[in-house]
This record gives sequence, C-alpha cells and structure tokens, in this order.
Amino acid sequence: TRTIRLAVVAGDGIGPEVVAEGLKVLDTVLAGSDVTVERTEFDLGAQRWHRTGETLTDEDLAAIREHDAILLGAIGDPSVPSGVLERGLLLKLRFALDHYVNLRPARLYPGVPTPLATPGDVDFVVVREGTEGPYVGNGGAIRVGTPHEVANEVSVNTAFGVERVVRDAFARAQARPRKKLTLVHKHNVLVHAGHLWRRTVEAVGAEYPDVTVDYAHVDAATIYLVTDPTRFDVIVTDNLFGDIITDLAAAISGGIGLAASGNINPERTTPSMFEPVHGSAPDIAGQGKADPTATVLSVALLLEHLGLTDEARRVSDAVAADIAERDGTPRSTSAVGDALAARAAARVPA
Amino acid sequence: TRTIRLAVVAGDGIGPEVVAEGLKVLDTVLAGSDVTVERTEFDLGAQRWHRTGETLTDEDLAAIREHDAILLGAIGDPSVPSGVLERGLLLKLRFALDHYVNLRPARLYPGVPTPLATPGDVDFVVVREGTEGPYVGNGGAIRVGTPHEVANEVSVNTAFGVERVVRDAFARAQARPRKKLTLVHKHNVLVHAGHLWRRTVEAVGAEYPDVTVDYAHVDAATIYLVTDPTRFDVIVTDNLFGDIITDLAAAISGGIGLAASGNINPERTTPSMFEPVHGSAPDIAGQGKADPTATVLSVALLLEHLGLTDEARRVSDAVAADIAERDGTPRSTSAVGDALAARAAARVPA
Ligand SMILES: CC(C)[C@H](C(=O)O)[C@@H](O)C(=O)O
Ligand SMILES: CC(C)[C@H](C(=O)O)[C@@H](O)C(=O)O
Repeated sequence: TRTIRLAVVAGDGIGPEVVAEGLKVLDTVLAGSDVTVERTEFDLGAQRWHRTGETLTDEDLAAIREHDAILLGAIGDPSVPSGVLERGLLLKLRFALDHYVNLRPARLYPGVPTPLATPGDVDFVVVREGTEGPYVGNGGAIRVGTPHEVANEVSVNTAFGVERVVRDAFARAQARPRKKLTLVHKHNVLVHAGHLWRRTVEAVGAEYPDVTVDYAHVDAATIYLVTDPTRFDVIVTDNLFGDIITDLAAAISGGIGLAASGNINPERTTPSMFEPVHGSAPDIAGQGKADPTATVLSVALLLEHLGLTDEARRVSDAVAADIAERDGTPRSTSAVGDALAARAAARVPA
Repeated sequence: TRTIRLAVVAGDGIGPEVVAEGLKVLDTVLAGSDVTVERTEFDLGAQRWHRTGETLTDEDLAAIREHDAILLGAIGDPSVPSGVLERGLLLKLRFALDHYVNLRPARLYPGVPTPLATPGDVDFVVVREGTEGPYVGNGGAIRVGTPHEVANEVSVNTAFGVERVVRDAFARAQARPRKKLTLVHKHNVLVHAGHLWRRTVEAVGAEYPDVTVDYAHVDAATIYLVTDPTRFDVIVTDNLFGDIITDLAAAISGGIGLAASGNINPERTTPSMFEPVHGSAPDIAGQGKADPTATVLSVALLLEHLGLTDEARRVSDAVAADIAERDGTPRSTSAVGDALAARAAARVPA
C-alpha cells in the first residue's frame, strides 16, 4: 500500500466548499485501491490573518513541505487589504516551493457553453512560468501618498528560470499529437526579457526538431484566443502574461468554473500544488452555489502528477461525462460533487 | 480659412495603403469647407532604417513638432530586429510628444461580425496610459547569452503620470450617458503600482460623484470582455494592460480592421497622433487587401481632436453606413476608401 500525504489548504470564500467536493471525488476514486490519503488541513487565509496577523509562517511552510502534494481551494477576501494574502500566502507558496511550471489546460468539452459563436475544437495547455517575471515582488515606491510618488514594479527573468520552464513546455509539446509550441510575450517592447525568452525558445527548440514553434505577442494572442483558439497546442509564457491569457482561455473553454491548474515542481523536490483557476468568489460563498468542477479537475491533475494515471483518467472522464449531460439546471456544489464521485467510482465505460 | 498642418507617417507594410485612403476621406470631407490641410510626408520606418540606420532623429522630431496632428499608418517589419522600430520610432513618438492618453474606442457597429455568440451593445472606450508603465524602456540585462543572464524590465508609475490620465478618463466618463469608469490593473500582485492607481482613482473620483467607479483585475477583465462586454463604459488602465485589452476589445467589436486610436496630448502642447490599432501586416502588404476602415476612423478621431466635430461625425457616420451594408464580399483597399469618401462627401441623411 502507498500513502499519499496531502496538505489541504481550503482557504477563503468558496474554497472550503469546492475543496470538500474535490476530496470527496479523490476518496471515491481511490476507494478499494491500495493507495490511502493522509490529509493535513492547514488553517490559512483570511480568518487566520484576522486572528493572528499571520499569512504563512516558517512553521507552516516546513509542515507543508512534509507532504506529497497540496490541494488548494482559493485565497483572498475583501476584508483583507489587497495583496496581503495573495503575496503573503498564495504566491509565497508558489515561490517558496519553486513551482516553476504553472500548468493550465484549456479544453472545451463537447456540449459546454462558450461565449464564442464557433469555437472549434479547443484543446491546448498553457505552461505559465511560476517563479519569476513581474510576480517577484521586487517593486517599491517612494514618496507614497504625495504628488511626487514613484511606484516601480520589476520583472526579473533569468536564463536559469526561463530555460527550465521552456524545456518543460517543449517536452509537453512533444508528447502531444500536434507537437506545437507557441511562445507568448511582447518582445518588441519588453526587449530585454523578450529577447531572453525568444533566444531560449530558439536554443531549446533545436533539441526538439519535431516540435513546430511559433510566436505571438500577448496582445495578438488575446485576439487569436477568441478568433482562432484551435491554433494553440502548448503555449509557454511568463508569469503575468500567463495569468492574463489563462483567464481568457478559461472563459472561452467553458468558464472559470471548469479551469484547473497545477503549480508544479517537476523535480519533485517539493510538494506540487493543485488549485482551481477561479478565486474565492466571496459574493457566493457559503451558499452551496459554487461549481466544484475546476477543483475536481485539479484533483485529476494531482493524481496524474502522482503517477496515478488510471485514477486521473477516471476523474476527468467522470467530468466529461457529467458535463455532456448538463442542461443548465442549477445544481448545488455538493450535488455536482456527488455526481462526479459516483461516475468516478463507477468507472464510466470508454 | 484655417490651415491644418498634418504630419503623415505612412510607415511600413500596409501603412501607406491605408493612410492613402484615410487622406482621401479627409480631403473629401473637408472639400468646399474653409479648412485646408497642409501635409508633410515623413519617410520613417523600415526602409529608412535599412538605408540610413536612423529611426527618428532629433531633426525629424523637431519637424514633426511643427504640425497640428500626425496621421500614422503602421510601424514594424520582420526585416528589422524586433524592438528597433517599435522602441526607436513608434514609442519614441508617443513618449517624446507626451501622448499620455492613448484613446481606443471599442464599438460594435450593427451588422458587424464578431466572434462572440451574443455580444450585446458593445460601446466603450479604453483610456490607456501612454507614457509610463512597463513601456518606459528602463529595463536591462546582464551576462546576456550566458547561463547566468538576468533580464529585468521596470514598470515606472508616477503620481503625476497616473493622476493626469485618470482625470482625463473621469472627464470622458462624465461626458458619456452611462458615466461609468472601470480601473483595470492587478493590484493584488503589483501592489506598489496597483495601489498608486487605486488611490488615485479614489481621490479623483471624489471630485466626480456622479461617475460610478468599479475595478477589475486585468485577468478578470479579459473574461468580462468575452462574457459581458456591455458592462464597460470607460476603462482606464496602464500602458501594458491597455495594450493587451484593446486588442481583445478590437477582436470582439469587429476586428482589428476597425479599431482606431488616438495618442493624445490633451494640453495640445504637441501634435497628437492618430493611428489604426492594427500593425503593418507584412503578409498582405502591397496587395490592396488591407481594410482601411480603422485608419478612416482614426481620421474621425483626428477631426474630433481638432474641434471639427461635424466633419468627424460625417466620417464616422459614413463608416457606420458602409459597414451596415457590408456582406462579406471582398473589396480592395481603395474601393473601401472610395465608398467611405463618397458617403462622407454626400452627407448621409441622419
Ligand atoms: C490571486 C492571484 C494572485 C493569482 C495570480 O495572479 O496568479 C490568480 O489570478 C491566479 O491566476 O492564480
Ligand atoms: C507595435 C507596438 C509597440 C504597439 C504597442 O505595444 O503599443 C502596438 O501593439 C499598439 O497597441 O499600438
């Protein structure tokens, strides 16, 4: 028997509700197998901060490190000043645990409503860099609150950091049928960072002659995402551009309620973290209205990362089958979780 | 009689073709009036750079300053290293002439095809800051080409720069029926710049109690732009976010072939510059295939800026009327220009 030590960070808003369903499906899909899950719940987020002023202590981080993976719901609450939990908790986890591959698949399941009139067969994955770029928190401000305030933000990009994520993206592209990689950046304006990304893609690409490489400026990429999303297979991009285009990618492929993500450390020296792309949605928190599908799909990515490929497939097949029968009738968070768990347990026929 | 000194920068690719049609419409709409246009053509862009190595000299800039406005086609060519013309010419003009309001209306004309299934009545304007942010060119790199390369990009934001563009945006919001302003930023991550923008919108907003203010993170804004674009009236945002969301805004409101822009110095101490949002499209250059409508609409913005409101209206009415009759049959660049000029001359009945 194998034991998976799972750190659970339910977080804020709808986080606990959707995580409960993710765990329900996880338990069901592993029931009867020789894999057991040992969970540790971490009390992190807005409530903890209000109570103690802490976001993520060294002790929290050390404890989390003792796990094989993390399932995270959502972080952020309007009662906490903007940036405190995002920088102090969510991004701190991604940076401290060196989650340099932020993996965000975008797949339009048949039958799912999309704002696009003719989306076509959308199925691509964004490899968003997770530990550099404008997210490093190296900005600062002087003369704050005066007419002479200057506020700077610094985007840091290193050959080390860019190369490792580009390598990961090429490997993923090569493993997919279309074998295509698109770099998204803005190298005509952000020339220093842009040229580093470009040169790196060129250099690593030489080792992957069977992968087709192209490029889109981030502004043009948003156009393609609504006019011709099927052109994309694997997108590799920086932390900020990745943040922006993956929300758009989610919007065109069924909405943020379906968008899963993995914050991955491919070397597995730290636990990787799986979370829905959506936020804490405080406006609907506690009402049993949130769609847990994105969390369940994040559980599928988690299983995949842990090498439990069959189980991962059962979860994503369960989601696909459930989605195919959705007709817009509202269901509660737990009703969706129950339905997905039932299908994942039952082994849907191929 | 009034003389308008117009600097014409046709530029690269399809630039000269679309500018010719813009000038055709401008001439027609002013024919018989007491306004005459005195044009100076500036040889700037890829060819000049190949010939002389120059992008924009001090002499060019001084000569351009002697004009009342600039009409620009497009800048950029694959034969020139990325960034050279963008930074050395296009952005240099915007920065040197202090075009701090980059105005980009997004309006879906009735009958225009859009990738969205149910776009609704899209009619908003993006006020993109034009002289700060990550566009300042304050980045740099060390150990270039080695495994230890570090490439930084710096976003500079000042109270002075943010306040003046926010004021402009509030004034525009107040002049519109819906009186709504949305700040787009990412203040939960880019906390220094983001909080400056936020505080400024709050402070200036206090002087505009009748303007409704809201906020969207840039990632969420891309979702709204495809799921609910009618929620926007005036958007104010920084240089990079503005670049990204205005391409998306163009895509959902009829495509980049229709998107006009003005790089405006509201104090009128320098000539403002009007240009289509699209690029030089080298793949279709010289074939008479480019749609000049975005340039013609930029001419309408130019006329508006010069106080020629009736003429501006005639041009935009001509575009609206022409668009209403488009059925997808391809027309050459000059055929579209002729049609628009004819309508603008004829004074379409209201
Ligand atoms: C909450 C926020 C810090 C986060 C990000 O910007 O990465 C979110 O938008 C995401 O995409 O996971
Ligand atoms: C060509 C490029 C420098 C420019 C920009 O990024 O501003 C263009 O994309 C635009 O939107 O006008």
